[in-house]
Amino acid sequence: MSKKKKSFRPKARLPRGFGDVHAHELRTMAAMIKKIGDIYELYGFEPLETPAMEFAECLGKFLPDADRPNEGVFALQDDDEQWMSLRYDLTAPTARFVAENYDHLAKPFRRYQTGNVWRNEKPGPGRFRQFVQFDADTIGSAEMAADAELAMMWADVMEALDIKRGDYVIRMNNRKILDGVLDKINLLGEDDASVKSRLTVMRAMDKLDRLGSAGVRLLLGDGRKDESGDYTKGAGLNAASIDKVIAFVEAGKNTNEATLDALSVLIEGSEIGQEGIAELAEINALVSAAGYGEDRICFDPSIVRGLGYYSGPVMEAELTFEIKDEKGNLVRFGSVGGGGRYDGLVARFKGIEIPATGISIGVSRLYAALQKLGKHKKSEVMPPVIITVMDKSERAVYHNMAMQLRQAGIRAEVYMGSSGMKAQVKYADKRGAPLVIIQGEDERNNGQITIKDLVIGSQASKDIADNQEWRSSQVAQMLVKSETLVENVKKILAKPHHQN
Amino acid sequence: MSKKKKSFRPKARLPRGFGDVHAHELRTMAAMIKKIGDIYELYGFEPLETPAMEFAECLGKFLPDADRPNEGVFALQDDDEQWMSLRYDLTAPTARFVAENYDHLAKPFRRYQTGNVWRNEKPGPGRFRQFVQFDADTIGSAEMAADAELAMMWADVMEALDIKRGDYVIRMNNRKILDGVLDKINLLGEDDASVKSRLTVMRAMDKLDRLGSAGVRLLLGDGRKDESGDYTKGAGLNAASIDKVIAFVEAGKNTNEATLDALSVLIEGSEIGQEGIAELAEINALVSAAGYGEDRICFDPSIVRGLGYYSGPVMEAELTFEIKDEKGNLVRFGSVGGGGRYDGLVARFKGIEIPATGISIGVSRLYAALQKLGKHKKSEVMPPVIITVMDKSERAVYHNMAMQLRQAGIRAEVYMGSSGMKAQVKYADKRGAPLVIIQGEDERNNGQITIKDLVIGSQASKDIADNQEWRSSQVAQMLVKSETLVENVKKILAKPHHQN
Repeated sequence: MSKKKKSFRPKARLPRGFGDVHAHELRTMAAMIKKIGDIYELYGFEPLETPAMEFAECLGKFLPDADRPNEGVFALQDDDEQWMSLRYDLTAPTARFVAENYDHLAKPFRRYQTGNVWRNEKPGPGRFRQFVQFDADTIGSAEMAADAELAMMWADVMEALDIKRGDYVIRMNNRKILDGVLDKINLLGEDDASVKSRLTVMRAMDKLDRLGSAGVRLLLGDGRKDESGDYTKGAGLNAASIDKVIAFVEAGKNTNEATLDALSVLIEGSEIGQEGIAELAEINALVSAAGYGEDRICFDPSIVRGLGYYSGPVMEAELTFEIKDEKGNLVRFGSVGGGGRYDGLVARFKGIEIPATGISIGVSRLYAALQKLGKHKKSEVMPPVIITVMDKSERAVYHNMAMQLRQAGIRAEVYMGSSGMKAQVKYADKRGAPLVIIQGEDERNNGQITIKDLVIGSQASKDIADNQEWRSSQVAQMLVKSETLVENVKKILAKPHHQN
Repeated sequence: MSKKKKSFRPKARLPRGFGDVHAHELRTMAAMIKKIGDIYELYGFEPLETPAMEFAECLGKFLPDADRPNEGVFALQDDDEQWMSLRYDLTAPTARFVAENYDHLAKPFRRYQTGNVWRNEKPGPGRFRQFVQFDADTIGSAEMAADAELAMMWADVMEALDIKRGDYVIRMNNRKILDGVLDKINLLGEDDASVKSRLTVMRAMDKLDRLGSAGVRLLLGDGRKDESGDYTKGAGLNAASIDKVIAFVEAGKNTNEATLDALSVLIEGSEIGQEGIAELAEINALVSAAGYGEDRICFDPSIVRGLGYYSGPVMEAELTFEIKDEKGNLVRFGSVGGGGRYDGLVARFKGIEIPATGISIGVSRLYAALQKLGKHKKSEVMPPVIITVMDKSERAVYHNMAMQLRQAGIRAEVYMGSSGMKAQVKYADKRGAPLVIIQGEDERNNGQITIKDLVIGSQASKDIADNQEWRSSQVAQMLVKSETLVENVKKILAKPHHQN
């Protein structure tokens, strides 16, 4: 059956934007996810999991590049011709879940979910087509307290992950205030031209951080040529409108109250805008009463959030410490997640509006950030003790040693390859094994086992210039009675040099 | 921005064969996965994660319905026209990973991986198009000890999951012994007719469990009409060949040694078959030396395993206890995973053969089995304490209570809806909340808080016939000083009726 000859030999590789995750990263990510989940649970959220694939029409098209409607998602047709997509976020599936199960749910419905999402976008450095998000949402609550709570919970998550106060900030804005300024420059119409300009204006505002106000001005006007020579067409606003938008995005002040005052002046006369300001004022009252100052939750009018379904408060978690970018310039690490209110998303299914708000943490991004901060400790999982195979016919004896160690809770494996002793010790070294167990014929006849300490060994080898000398020194080896294997391994592993 | 009117209203539902996973199941599955992972780690395996999507040519086509080559997987084309598939198992991606990273890996490479896999098959009861597998593989080892170890580890996993000895068995066979019997009936040729008959014969053998030898006989001969009237064409073997195959699948004996003796007679003269028997004999020596008897690991010639890449020992974990099927008949629960040796899978990429062996646990199936066995305990996570909102203008006070409780490690949430007190208590009840916190104007003025115990409440209500009487009895309510909220909540939650 296995004799089929195949001339075609595929290249072993992954599609662009996909990656493998190795043991250390996986363990660290799992620990991060555990910490985030613990905070979400403390706040009363319960876990939920939705499948990777959904009907395309259920997920809808809310990605930032909504002007290219079929871009952004991985989609395929089912047997019956219906289009299915891999989820591009965890919010749209949750809206589907709530609409589908509405009558049975305790409302407000509060759930958290973590898992992969997929974006069919051009991958780049740090930009993958599969990545992990970790969301929490409150669905069925119009209370600003729900939004305020998410911002506070987010700040708690940051500190639970050991990110110092000052190294992160939750920035908030309100789509309604944004609508207010768009109202003032007559861009709230539903005609195609208004819709398109609005998107261009919002995208320009979103770039204040990166391009500064001069760059944003160009994008609001005729357009901007970037360093590579690529030209981005602008929104074509007139000078007065540009001034209004720039004044708006720069209206962030030292206190949240002062920011709201400044915004209030700028959007005077816009009903929707004032509504947005009142909402943020309510949020501000709650977060400041709870002792979350502007150093943790601050209002920032330049926060836009790309996703098309947001309808009220929006927020972004930013890491403010600086790292070197590809060109060696110091830049802020930046956003590690976004969120906001999406009152219309469940209404797509139900007809009636179900108010909802949520946040989404970019776990993969956050992992990279914590790595930059040096927060990832050495894995707490000790690699296995490796039992070498000196004599293949004695495998049962070696397996018995492994079994004894495992029964004592010690990771252990018998070498499974076919190489000799030198390669076996090299294998143990590559695995990071703390100890190697050896029993040759002599030892067996004497009822003894050799335990070789690879950690002492490698430390010693740094001190001893002459490799030959080190080899013969045998400093890290001990001979024990077979029946004392487990107690001796335990004793050695308890020593300080195995505990860091 | 949120004013766009949409007339189309999608139905909130999932594609066939996909499902949502709720809090209790998720928590139980996570606990199961933790236990399985702990055993794998004890044996020295390290975690790895590969992405959901791979190039179709890298995954290859090894599903049981290999005669319908494009069936079974979810595939789509990338921008550059290359076909990508969602992984249908975790073995094929691992083979790709090993081939891609071969030079850097410690060999043998021993990894475990858990995650979703996707099969584009017709879903049915208990048959999903997305499900969770949990694999362990040793790649780069030709030693039968590697296969033996996996079988023993599998038995350990079953017992770690609290499945009693006798309720599970690991059944093993060897594709080479299968080849031996196919050799005896002249079906080892590489011509299309032989390949096709071979598949039909193997599929027939695989059904011994369900159809008995009479049914298998029909499938080996002309064909078989099932109860629904559907006709399955048979392999068209002659009577002598049918006898040989039936004798083979029924060659399982009381001891593994006796099984091997019986098989040895049946395939006498077939070199490949004898090789297979020698391999199982080696495995038998190891597992019996380690004290794993036939009640845990037994040789069963009817085990085939559908996947096309197996090349040596194959195994299957079977749960032997009986459950009622849809028709009310008692049937064995059956397989919860499979595995085996696939020496040719990495060779697809590398040209040179890299021996490998692995097992795959069907986590979703195993979850269902443990549910049938009543092994899933009540969730250990206590639902949150719900703080009701009597007076919206005092939200900051309620949030402060929640914060105090959370700081003491107690799950707590402020009610986020807009309904009145009755609906709020109903909400708390639906969430399974142990306690409800109430502070109205009177209590606030007196510096007090009411704690309502919902568990005592619901127990009491069972004893008291008159609901009216129960309502007024207030047996489960206490009034405490505001500053003693946390200590009193702790005290109540420590009582036995909250601890089960």
